[in-house]
Amino acid sequence: MSGNTFGHLLRLTSFGESHGPAIGGVLDGMPPGIALSEADIQPALDRRRPGTSRHTTQRREPDTVRLLSGVYQGETTGTPIGFVIDNTDQRSKDYDRIARQYRPGHADLTYIAKYGRRDPRGGGRASARETAVRVAAGAMALKVLTHLLGPDVAVRGALVALGGRAVDPARWDWNAVADNPFFCPDPETAALWAEDLDKVRKAGSSVGAVAQVEAHGLPAGLGAPVFDRLDADLAKALMSINAVKGVEIGAGFAAAAFSGEENADEMRPDGAGGIAFQSNNAGGILGGISSGQPIVARAAFKPTSSILTPRRSVDQDGNAVEVVTTGRHDPCVGIRGVPVAEAMMTLTLADHLLRQRAIAPG
Amino acid sequence: MSGNTFGHLLRLTSFGESHGPAIGGVLDGMPPGIALSEADIQPALDRRRPGTSRHTTQRREPDTVRLLSGVYQGETTGTPIGFVIDNTDQRSKDYDRIARQYRPGHADLTYIAKYGRRDPRGGGRASARETAVRVAAGAMALKVLTHLLGPDVAVRGALVALGGRAVDPARWDWNAVADNPFFCPDPETAALWAEDLDKVRKAGSSVGAVAQVEAHGLPAGLGAPVFDRLDADLAKALMSINAVKGVEIGAGFAAAAFSGEENADEMRPDGAGGIAFQSNNAGGILGGISSGQPIVARAAFKPTSSILTPRRSVDQDGNAVEVVTTGRHDPCVGIRGVPVAEAMMTLTLADHLLRQRAIAPG
Amino acid sequence: MSGNTFGHLLRLTSFGESHGPAIGGVLDGMPPGIALSEADIQPALDRRRPGTSRHTTQRREPDTVRLLSGVYQGETTGTPIGFVIDNTDQRSKDYDRIARQYRPGHADLTYIAKYGRRDPRGGGRASARETAVRVAAGAMALKVLTHLLGPDVAVRGALVALGGRAVDPARWDWNAVADNPFFCPDPETAALWAEDLDKVRKAGSSVGAVAQVEAHGLPAGLGAPVFDRLDADLAKALMSINAVKGVEIGAGFAAAAFSGEENADEMRPDGAGGIAFQSNNAGGILGGISSGQPIVARAAFKPTSSILTPRRSVDQDGNAVEVVTTGRHDPCVGIRGVPVAEAMMTLTLADHLLRQRAIAPG
Amino acid sequence: MSGNTFGHLLRLTSFGESHGPAIGGVLDGMPPGIALSEADIQPALDRRRPGTSRHTTQRREPDTVRLLSGVYQGETTGTPIGFVIDNTDQRSKDYDRIARQYRPGHADLTYIAKYGRRDPRGGGRASARETAVRVAAGAMALKVLTHLLGPDVAVRGALVALGGRAVDPARWDWNAVADNPFFCPDPETAALWAEDLDKVRKAGSSVGAVAQVEAHGLPAGLGAPVFDRLDADLAKALMSINAVKGVEIGAGFAAAAFSGEENADEMRPDGAGGIAFQSNNAGGILGGISSGQPIVARAAFKPTSSILTPRRSVDQDGNAVEVVTTGRHDPCVGIRGVPVAEAMMTLTLADHLLRQRAIAPG
Repeated sequence: MSGNTFGHLLRLTSFGESHGPAIGGVLDGMPPGIALSEADIQPALDRRRPGTSRHTTQRREPDTVRLLSGVYQGETTGTPIGFVIDNTDQRSKDYDRIARQYRPGHADLTYIAKYGRRDPRGGGRASARETAVRVAAGAMALKVLTHLLGPDVAVRGALVALGGRAVDPARWDWNAVADNPFFCPDPETAALWAEDLDKVRKAGSSVGAVAQVEAHGLPAGLGAPVFDRLDADLAKALMSINAVKGVEIGAGFAAAAFSGEENADEMRPDGAGGIAFQSNNAGGILGGISSGQPIVARAAFKPTSSILTPRRSVDQDGNAVEVVTTGRHDPCVGIRGVPVAEAMMTLTLADHLLRQRAIAPG
Repeated sequence: MSGNTFGHLLRLTSFGESHGPAIGGVLDGMPPGIALSEADIQPALDRRRPGTSRHTTQRREPDTVRLLSGVYQGETTGTPIGFVIDNTDQRSKDYDRIARQYRPGHADLTYIAKYGRRDPRGGGRASARETAVRVAAGAMALKVLTHLLGPDVAVRGALVALGGRAVDPARWDWNAVADNPFFCPDPETAALWAEDLDKVRKAGSSVGAVAQVEAHGLPAGLGAPVFDRLDADLAKALMSINAVKGVEIGAGFAAAAFSGEENADEMRPDGAGGIAFQSNNAGGILGGISSGQPIVARAAFKPTSSILTPRRSVDQDGNAVEVVTTGRHDPCVGIRGVPVAEAMMTLTLADHLLRQRAIAPG
Repeated sequence: MSGNTFGHLLRLTSFGESHGPAIGGVLDGMPPGIALSEADIQPALDRRRPGTSRHTTQRREPDTVRLLSGVYQGETTGTPIGFVIDNTDQRSKDYDRIARQYRPGHADLTYIAKYGRRDPRGGGRASARETAVRVAAGAMALKVLTHLLGPDVAVRGALVALGGRAVDPARWDWNAVADNPFFCPDPETAALWAEDLDKVRKAGSSVGAVAQVEAHGLPAGLGAPVFDRLDADLAKALMSINAVKGVEIGAGFAAAAFSGEENADEMRPDGAGGIAFQSNNAGGILGGISSGQPIVARAAFKPTSSILTPRRSVDQDGNAVEVVTTGRHDPCVGIRGVPVAEAMMTLTLADHLLRQRAIAPG
Repeated sequence: MSGNTFGHLLRLTSFGESHGPAIGGVLDGMPPGIALSEADIQPALDRRRPGTSRHTTQRREPDTVRLLSGVYQGETTGTPIGFVIDNTDQRSKDYDRIARQYRPGHADLTYIAKYGRRDPRGGGRASARETAVRVAAGAMALKVLTHLLGPDVAVRGALVALGGRAVDPARWDWNAVADNPFFCPDPETAALWAEDLDKVRKAGSSVGAVAQVEAHGLPAGLGAPVFDRLDADLAKALMSINAVKGVEIGAGFAAAAFSGEENADEMRPDGAGGIAFQSNNAGGILGGISSGQPIVARAAFKPTSSILTPRRSVDQDGNAVEVVTTGRHDPCVGIRGVPVAEAMMTLTLADHLLRQRAIAPG
């Protein structure tokens, strides 16, 4: 394992830097016979794409994906799918100054510590640009889920808090998510976020956010205890996204303050041979295995580290410096993190669905 | 991958059910030449062992570990270390009744969904008993860290909240952790927890908790972006522990409400050629790679699902039932979760330390 | 990967030295619902067991396997199966002399080079004793095959050459294999081998051998190109056995001298909707995927390196020495290699069968 | 694992079909600081390239590699290296006829059995074209070896038998290998092969071959028993190449006819603190670990399955057919298999070198 592969039976191997010729990946393990073309992937990339509102970075990338293999006559063949997304908007500029500075909150210091060097252009491999590869692969993984489970399977995400202001669960409307630039399920909160974020952007500052992702229509039985539990793999999947500092399943940290009575998700017969859960504190996962309830996870994104306010730091030579990060940045990386979180949940679920098929009776 | 192996270069493979003859594992990848005997492991097991205070389950297990291989003349040879811990206190009782009930919060339903059957004796594989294997392996992984990095490396844990009552960071004293049955770093809070937990236990109820684990003395450079980030692997490691529903690194969910200015960990030259960080919101990890600061993570444990208050549920045949869980249970599984969380952090760090050695210059 | 795990979905992790307390392993990924007990495994171990004829080592080990987990009420539960085989016949002797000698053909030198130390007692981890773990796991893997494919699946092996004397294919009789101590399918050759080997043993010498293993009743479609081809994984499986220096599939090296016409396995409709192959030079594998024909592989075993004739060598300090290996040794390790080769083929096939289920239509 | 990734710490993930837009891969785990550009890779690709003599297929592919990531300012950064090789000479033709025929010796039948479909254009994924990706990666792996071990490390290959005619070891001259189109180390035999192969080609037939690959300058200590032995991983590496049906290490199958005395590689002090082996029947590997001697392996290639002589077969509908394979084919795939075998040996060695660094003392 060298770090750039995710999954076991459905495996994404990713490559690419912010300012190299292209980013891309290989998705290996796609079952054969799934209708697939670039048109299945592009909409997901467009949701993540920068520059679609004033609230995200003004870098303009078409993020056009090209499939290089694994598809014949419009269907997957079972062989690996190579894909690339060209980098097009790479502003040539002088990186010499920042190339030796350790920007607080960035990976400058740690890439130097690990590799003895780093590609400073646009953050190199540490740039959030690599998440486009995840989104492309997630769109393909979603085709695996719908191919094997039917069209009612859904993985969807929303932003539930931005800069400390949370949505009102009572006003939650999944249909609203596409109607604002924040993936916000609560239109009233979305309007307030727009105001909040305008102030943040004008101040050259940034804010954190919390994303929630849910999967509906997945069967019970996914997950491989004791280590490859579904929740453990989801935690890894979400924590591997740039800027994520916390992950919750179901009630999450709130459960730590619950009593056993409050936490227990009671069950009743649903009258149709199934089970009607009375609550979902478990987030759809018990003992590391999906229960058939919706799978619910949240990821906390820290604020964008690139801010205009000078911060004290050091450079690669050990000198004290003041760092100001100019350039084109998202004031809140959590926003565009929503489709990335969806993609990572989808990849995790598709992988475990294939794993479960391997041992399932019949 | 079949679910019961953790790590890549230092790999723990675990086996065992609560009421089988034994639990155990294989730890493969131990570097040669490390002094190792059962005496290095037993103290860690004793910290996790049940029955040491009135606040944990009264099941009595000596949890004696036996090493079966991989050590010669008191030192590791580089070959895999097989080890077993016999199960001794397996009360014979009639499991027929609960064998077909789905206890809320337990994995009964999901094991049936996944495997079509389950071992109902004491929770079978889903029992927290398997975490003893993790603790034994964690003690060996700690020897890897100290062997390669020196005796100042430390991985330590504490309980920072129980049932909604949190410790006061101002009173934090690592030395206090061993002086109370809660791994509590704040003696005043520990006294209150004792009262809280007596009430909970008498009521046949349970509570959740939050554990914090920290690693000190680890070098910068550990972690393998973009997927096998150190934080991502820690998230998986901690979320794979029974009853954990949330994981944070550094400021965690609090960072989602920070501004960029608040979140930035400023740096100064430390006067000795190194870097003095002014804060540690990052929890010692930037871009998925350790920064040289202390590595800080937290895990939220849900309340023990076994409670005396009847809960509505269904059985394997779809009938409505009321479930009451008698037997010997921890009122707060988070307490004994502390050494388990330490072990999982240690295993993760040792694995990444070996991975980093593979590519390091020189 | 640390070297002691084999397989992906059905995974054997092995541990143990020749003279430690026990050898054993964990078999993870067993599908649930398979009837399994020690009685299913012991006959396979007994076939490999030393001391059953004058032609194998006189070390006496009962090789009794104990299952520690993963079975409930006589059936697999889907959780990992821990198992141990105690070492009982460990003659205490002075290993000091040979402990510092590099015996030609042994792994003494290379274990020192790799690990800086070695366990000299009976060969330590490099002893063929570890193959008992493989045989036990192979017996369990065979249960996976018959559980999923029916009772007609068979994996069987035979010795086809010993010391340069080969069996006559025209006299091949699978039923004869159990009737002689060589797993020889040709009774006439078996009688000659007995004479040959008596001479070898009396001379304190040793000889090499070739084993052939076949799998019947496996479906077409197993194997995962381009790297995890079925033949590639079989090659690894067989070459990982102590003393194996060559592996062939089907016609093997003979195919290198064939013309395309000679090599082509022609096909005809079999009259029942299937395919009747006219030959099997491919050994049942095309493009790395099983074709439905019998899968045929051979492994070449070098002679036992322990011989009484003095050989020149060096010791750990660089001094010239003469090495004479006394002790209890098989004059031909290839004989007891037959059940080991069967086991490794079975483990490989069972793993690929599970992998294929993951992506199979329906 | 989904089949298209090779290696653990240095990992090649491969994609691409014969007639898709491109083939390519991701090489993850390259240590940082290695000088690398396309110019380091192209010569290796040119050695494997078709159309360079009358003895190989007349398909004309420039096989130009482009690096898409992982290199900055001419040196590797430690991040994954994405690379592509465009397919350019894809003759448009009607594949309908052969698309439903099972060509003897080809993977047509088995791809259908496995995936329910196949890309018939030029063999799709089963085409030897994918081996260009291996060769490109092998050239990068060689840079890892020389970067870490110095310029004297060498991995080289030769064809040692073609159609049953073997080279004379007494005339072996590594310098001759580049002087003929067969990678033949014996000029006299090369001249005979040219005659042989002209006849074969004119007859529309094909022949098999044996390649030998050797690694010089590798340290003792590489390999990870008991399963990831160096010889086992080499066996997998070589057997994973198209058309390979047998693999030998050192004396290989000949060792099966040796006595223990003949097989033992005696050692003497070399007068410089090292060891002088008197022979190399072990092929440089003892107990699955490199001994410091040259590592020697051979691979047997079956004849090209595409021949002009009609062969009986069946089609996808179960009908009897006669198959004649027209088109541009190598009469002996083993020739161009030499650089592929070198590449696979190099990838295996570089992976194990990194693995050994992880646990090495100091």
